[in-house]
Amino acid sequence: MNKVFKPYYAVIFTSTQSEYIEGYSEMAGKMESLAKEQDGFLGIDSARNAIGITVSYWQDIESIKKWKQNSEHLIAQQKGRNQWYSWYNVRICKVEKEYEHSLP
Amino acid sequence: MNKVFKPYYAVIFTSTQSEYIEGYSEMAGKMESLAKEQDGFLGIDSARNAIGITVSYWQDIESIKKWKQNSEHLIAQQKGRNQWYSWYNVRICKVEKEYEHSLP
Repeated sequence: MNKVFKPYYAVIFTSTQSEYIEGYSEMAGKMESLAKEQDGFLGIDSARNAIGITVSYWQDIESIKKWKQNSEHLIAQQKGRNQWYSWYNVRICKVEKEYEHSLP
Repeated sequence: MNKVFKPYYAVIFTSTQSEYIEGYSEMAGKMESLAKEQDGFLGIDSARNAIGITVSYWQDIESIKKWKQNSEHLIAQQKGRNQWYSWYNVRICKVEKEYEHSLP
């Protein structure tokens, strides 16, 4: 029997860092911990080479809106815009289908 | 005036590599080139540390289905399942909203 798939949301954050990354790592760690405490948070994946990709997963769009307005997160976003990132892009996505595979 | 946003699709592919990555880099490069030639392909972002994240962007769900069935891509998928990846996850997502920022 197939499990019924319940859609949820993903935020795809892609970015390139500026030269001025002082304080970035500390804040990134802090924001990841804080995100994990939010209502509706489901998970997060992150990797960075030439480009950084962080995908966070959320129960619904309301949880994403609340997290975007979180006061500590607002300060981090401002630092990101003004200092750490030379460029970034945010995509709000509805996850409609998912499949997974593991080696036995 | 706001530009009207036209939704499109993202495929979030997250993976961890196995120990047996012979031939992987070559195939990854080949698949990225091949994806770029497909109808409906819009772009691709990739980064790998402990986890690999590749997000490809597509005009519609039909383009994704066709790419999934591409004969060369099917061979790569099989090698991925059987050899290169110890685990992977695929999420098909509708991009509903997007914003971008660049330093001036």
